[in-house]
Amino acid sequence: MSFSMYLSPEDEGSLLSIDLQAIVSNWQTLTARLSPGCQAGAVVKADAYGLGADRVAPALAAAGCRRFFVASLEEGLRLRPLLAGLEILVLNGPFPGTEAAFAAHDLIPVLNSLEQVAGWAALADKTGTNRACVLHLDTGMARLGLRAEQASLLAADRSMLSRLGLIMVMSHLASADQPNDPLNSRQLAAFQKISQLFPGLETSLAASSGIFLGPAWHGHWVRPGAALYGVAPNADAPNPMTQVVRLQGKIIQLRDVDAGDSVGYGATHHMAAAGRLAIVAAGYADGYFRSLGNRGYGFVGERRVPVVGRVSMDLIAFDVTAIPTEALSPGAMIDLIGPDLTVDDVAAAAGTIGYEVLTALGRRYRRHYRGGSMA
Amino acid sequence: MSFSMYLSPEDEGSLLSIDLQAIVSNWQTLTARLSPGCQAGAVVKADAYGLGADRVAPALAAAGCRRFFVASLEEGLRLRPLLAGLEILVLNGPFPGTEAAFAAHDLIPVLNSLEQVAGWAALADKTGTNRACVLHLDTGMARLGLRAEQASLLAADRSMLSRLGLIMVMSHLASADQPNDPLNSRQLAAFQKISQLFPGLETSLAASSGIFLGPAWHGHWVRPGAALYGVAPNADAPNPMTQVVRLQGKIIQLRDVDAGDSVGYGATHHMAAAGRLAIVAAGYADGYFRSLGNRGYGFVGERRVPVVGRVSMDLIAFDVTAIPTEALSPGAMIDLIGPDLTVDDVAAAAGTIGYEVLTALGRRYRRHYRGGSMA
Repeated sequence: MSFSMYLSPEDEGSLLSIDLQAIVSNWQTLTARLSPGCQAGAVVKADAYGLGADRVAPALAAAGCRRFFVASLEEGLRLRPLLAGLEILVLNGPFPGTEAAFAAHDLIPVLNSLEQVAGWAALADKTGTNRACVLHLDTGMARLGLRAEQASLLAADRSMLSRLGLIMVMSHLASADQPNDPLNSRQLAAFQKISQLFPGLETSLAASSGIFLGPAWHGHWVRPGAALYGVAPNADAPNPMTQVVRLQGKIIQLRDVDAGDSVGYGATHHMAAAGRLAIVAAGYADGYFRSLGNRGYGFVGERRVPVVGRVSMDLIAFDVTAIPTEALSPGAMIDLIGPDLTVDDVAAAAGTIGYEVLTALGRRYRRHYRGGSMA
Repeated sequence: MSFSMYLSPEDEGSLLSIDLQAIVSNWQTLTARLSPGCQAGAVVKADAYGLGADRVAPALAAAGCRRFFVASLEEGLRLRPLLAGLEILVLNGPFPGTEAAFAAHDLIPVLNSLEQVAGWAALADKTGTNRACVLHLDTGMARLGLRAEQASLLAADRSMLSRLGLIMVMSHLASADQPNDPLNSRQLAAFQKISQLFPGLETSLAASSGIFLGPAWHGHWVRPGAALYGVAPNADAPNPMTQVVRLQGKIIQLRDVDAGDSVGYGATHHMAAAGRLAIVAAGYADGYFRSLGNRGYGFVGERRVPVVGRVSMDLIAFDVTAIPTEALSPGAMIDLIGPDLTVDDVAAAAGTIGYEVLTALGRRYRRHYRGGSMA
């Protein structure tokens, strides 16, 4: 249901701008870092980290990306028509009984357990075709993937292997954003050791942060996600990625407040002096986390304005006392994410990581895409 | 785009069940508490607090609710075709230039500022009709609404008032969930004083928690939202509302872990003893907050199982060592919100409130509605 017939863009509320060209540029930046023989796929799970997989994935495909990673079967089904002839890998693998749906729609499962391996082999028995799949080896996440002893059992089972159509073995790093964590080298060594049990297959170990650990971690395929969307791969180093997102909150009302006035639910903020508030049409229902109450901030041009009081479901109050009165009026915008306020900055204020800020971005924002092949 | 042709319900991932009959029952419970002359509307903004306004609002309409509250024009437009002949009030009011869209679709704006008042009067000048609207008076939130002196100015402006079609004055309580906060009585007194400037109009002050402060706060219309959806109106008293939501996370993989094994990103959890993990297909991209890492818990039947390690974007690890091996297999469910684990419980573990848990509920969950007129 579209309401564009009723509303011009100016009529609507807060605005989320997504720069597809910046995503493509980030993918190219990462690709340029890779060793010969290594390629970059793209992780577009969780609706491309909240930014719209139906727009992001085709833009990356147009730039040359050939392998896409989603979390679930349903995500794969949604992208399949948009990525004709390209590979879609499903990281969570098949739930029991869904193997045929993977095959019917040319989705490549990542097999995370011996049960998933057996299910995929059973499909081969039924159809007479051993279809492409990827094997996930756990090397220190204890999340998905085979344990070392399970991998050894499988590697010795030639009959089972012959029914799988394995194209790649992969693992996942637990602390790649902390380059000095010795876990990174331990996981690399473990992966190299176990993957030798599956000779001739491609390998994949690194996601966004792992790419920056160096060529030893690259293997044949890297799987960037967060870095494509502008999140810093290493929290302690300058961010080499281009910003992708701008979020502008629309002002409903400007209001004068007196010294001592309390602001918002629970009266958690009191004005130290008379001033002026801007009430913006966004709130925690839009993924502007409630934990940003009295901690977050926005920008009016180059001037920082603090969130005062608790974040409401649909509203945020900013103290704009320092902004000249004539500079703001109802309908004007405050940057909630913008040139001077990255996704990572918002995450730091909220006590989380940029990934969660992105995936929480709400559905009520008007979305504007710039760049990309479909723009 | 529907994929029901490919997948049976069992094939899909985690399951969010929403009990429309429980929402109706909660609305009736609240209605029964009201003084004579007071009616209950229903707040269905933010997509009915994440539960689906297109299902919730018609169910409440069938039960007799006649007045619905949304946050924005767009939300009002979406509900308009589903609520023929019933009132839809838009709490944020019109952005400049959108007044005609309100009128064209029979949406009643809440006027929060003198600018919004002037805009609505200008529409009357243009069309020759003064259409229904509501006036918001601020009594202590410093969020939306006229200040007392602005209300006095407006009350004295007979010309302006004659062009407005005012049907109700409203205000909003800042601390209604804390019945002993003296702010509640101060806001009531302020509202009674200012609303006398607008004689003959209906009044509305209380949302969910305010209903429980007592009849003095009720006025002509109460505006329950959170309580309809099962959130406790008073954090320090037993919850009189019926639970509405059940969220079941589907197990992708069960895995054995050794003593000392680290779990998840950053290796924030180490197993004290050998055990067993269940990896569930949900994560912070589904609104299962990252702050629940090492703090949240689920239930397998009546047995509590803790979240171990960080919550990932698409995955959560639960320690199910205490659950008999035969009781769980891939595809089985763990309650993330359920009979023994309310929305408020999850919120407490996450460091937030039930409202935010609800509005964050993700779009990847399969949604099953029970009860209601359309079921």
